[in-house]
Amino acid sequence: MSFAIPAIDTETTLKLDVERALEDFFSARKLTAASYGENFERLWALSSQGVRGGKLVRPVLMLKTYDALVASAGGLTGYGAQSPSREAILKIAGAIELLHYSFLLHDDVLDGDVVRRGRPNLIGALLTDAPDGFEDDHQTQVNSHWANTGAILMGDLLLSNVHQLFARVCVADTGNLRLLDLLEHVITESVAGEHLDVAFGDGVLTPDLADILEMCVFKTATYSFEFPLRAAVILAGFESDLEEGLSVAGRHLGLAFQLQDDLLSTFGDPSVHGKDPFSDLREGKHTAVIAYARQTSAWSSIEPVFGKSDLSMQEAETARSFLVECGARDFVQGLLDAEVKAFRACLENPRYAIPRQLQFVLHELAKDLDGRQL
Amino acid sequence: MSFAIPAIDTETTLKLDVERALEDFFSARKLTAASYGENFERLWALSSQGVRGGKLVRPVLMLKTYDALVASAGGLTGYGAQSPSREAILKIAGAIELLHYSFLLHDDVLDGDVVRRGRPNLIGALLTDAPDGFEDDHQTQVNSHWANTGAILMGDLLLSNVHQLFARVCVADTGNLRLLDLLEHVITESVAGEHLDVAFGDGVLTPDLADILEMCVFKTATYSFEFPLRAAVILAGFESDLEEGLSVAGRHLGLAFQLQDDLLSTFGDPSVHGKDPFSDLREGKHTAVIAYARQTSAWSSIEPVFGKSDLSMQEAETARSFLVECGARDFVQGLLDAEVKAFRACLENPRYAIPRQLQFVLHELAKDLDGRQL
Repeated sequence: MSFAIPAIDTETTLKLDVERALEDFFSARKLTAASYGENFERLWALSSQGVRGGKLVRPVLMLKTYDALVASAGGLTGYGAQSPSREAILKIAGAIELLHYSFLLHDDVLDGDVVRRGRPNLIGALLTDAPDGFEDDHQTQVNSHWANTGAILMGDLLLSNVHQLFARVCVADTGNLRLLDLLEHVITESVAGEHLDVAFGDGVLTPDLADILEMCVFKTATYSFEFPLRAAVILAGFESDLEEGLSVAGRHLGLAFQLQDDLLSTFGDPSVHGKDPFSDLREGKHTAVIAYARQTSAWSSIEPVFGKSDLSMQEAETARSFLVECGARDFVQGLLDAEVKAFRACLENPRYAIPRQLQFVLHELAKDLDGRQL
Repeated sequence: MSFAIPAIDTETTLKLDVERALEDFFSARKLTAASYGENFERLWALSSQGVRGGKLVRPVLMLKTYDALVASAGGLTGYGAQSPSREAILKIAGAIELLHYSFLLHDDVLDGDVVRRGRPNLIGALLTDAPDGFEDDHQTQVNSHWANTGAILMGDLLLSNVHQLFARVCVADTGNLRLLDLLEHVITESVAGEHLDVAFGDGVLTPDLADILEMCVFKTATYSFEFPLRAAVILAGFESDLEEGLSVAGRHLGLAFQLQDDLLSTFGDPSVHGKDPFSDLREGKHTAVIAYARQTSAWSSIEPVFGKSDLSMQEAETARSFLVECGARDFVQGLLDAEVKAFRACLENPRYAIPRQLQFVLHELAKDLDGRQL
């Protein structure tokens, strides 16, 4: 290959760049918030800490893609002298992470979660704000109301700020409109996916396998993969053919990662992968594994423990054996492999004219999927 | 006066215009939503009905202000040939109503309300979506989860769409940036106000009178009055002096309306004003009336029933007598009068150079405050 292999510290450097952009964003917002009292300021400070805990995979994917595209064009964007500044690029990278965090905040309210990444999430942190005193049922309810209020309102504020960052970036030609169109598409689809997932969980719909796969693409693949990839294409000033190709590729890759996640949380070794063992089973989560098993005769043996909150280790292990025996694990592994293959084929498809530097970066990304063993 | 008195049907016509703009918006969105399944489409359809129930005071105020400003300049905006189209103006008017509705959706989730304007709100409507069957505690919880999910997600979608509408409108010079700055200010302040109000309600802070008044301005006056007035100035291409004047005026007027509301819901005749009698007392709402009473010796007689959910008619009437006797009613009426006076003075302040056509429209608006008798 004729291009240089990216330096080893690229990922670390990009992560630091995003962290700095996020820090700048929160510093400015905390300053404004201070004029509305200490509780509001603290809400911003806590969120800023919450964002910092993330792995920043989405903005780093955006920056890697952007840098590969610009490198492939000899260091120039399609806007020539009117290229957006590095600062502008980093702001959009930060906005991509903020969108993710704002989704998490509202998801946590809906799921009643108070912990994320092993630490108290924003709700968990706000629970400690409540006035001290005798903790009766009423007070517990009030404390939870206060904490959920903070998470809902902060989700609203960050969602607003994501739009502000997208609306204010200066990209020449139709760049700004393309970015706004992308953001609109991504938010509609992610919210539709979340709505669908909750419909499954609440029994409004009983999903078949196709429904589950569609939901995973809408809810996760779109904003986690398609979004950063397409944002990079627009910011680098490349044509919409490439945008379309990366959109298709991103959805395949995103679905593959989600399937991997589902396999790991049911069949993985928690000591290796750090996943809470059997949490999907206990919560009655509708995954591809479950949708497949539902069509087999094994389901009658699995159903009684599916969604059982006090699932015993013995019950869980028995259910897992049934899931293996009925072929659900192999089937989903097959789906995963097919998605990775489709992703790689997409990268090589001449129709999309994906530059070789970018092909390299994205092929590397999919290696994580080959590498994660069950 | 040298200008024509507005035709009687101006208000009705403007309302119809906004309704049409909102209908266009929802038709387009429902079409997109349909590709994500019938539940998502229904969510959009229900919201579209929910928005329709409003009085549209905010967008109508924006349009009246805009029209008065353009009329005062001989039918031209400050952008001359580059003036935004009427369609663009109506889109922003619609967006102002959508912001209001998106706030209501999240407020209703936080307050656990299922009724608004005497009809089921979005949450109330979604409660009927839940699968039929034996309604035990678990099922009730699931139904409520499904309904709250719809309201949170729809609030997010509409908040996003407000930003999209603001970001896509074409206003010459710095118009677009001024609109984005305004939107950012309005959302930050309204959310800060809601956060403060919940802090009072949840006992995180015990507010004094100044806190209450500040909260009312942040939570209500800013987005209900300052926002439409300033948006009109920007769209009409007038200078920031006028914007500043209408910002100050709007806050006075907004606070006056809020104080009127507080007085009516405690001392008003429900058969005349349609307010739920004593709901503020029963809910323990921190209003200016309460903040004043708290400083008097009457408070020890009021406090035991403040926030008592099963308040009897007898108890409520006794508390009301105490609120009158301790001077709270007269004091708040005095505050209200002072706000109306400050508002009118602001309109006449030569520094802001508010055109006479607009002065006329806004003086008329304040007449509603004189007219509403306790």
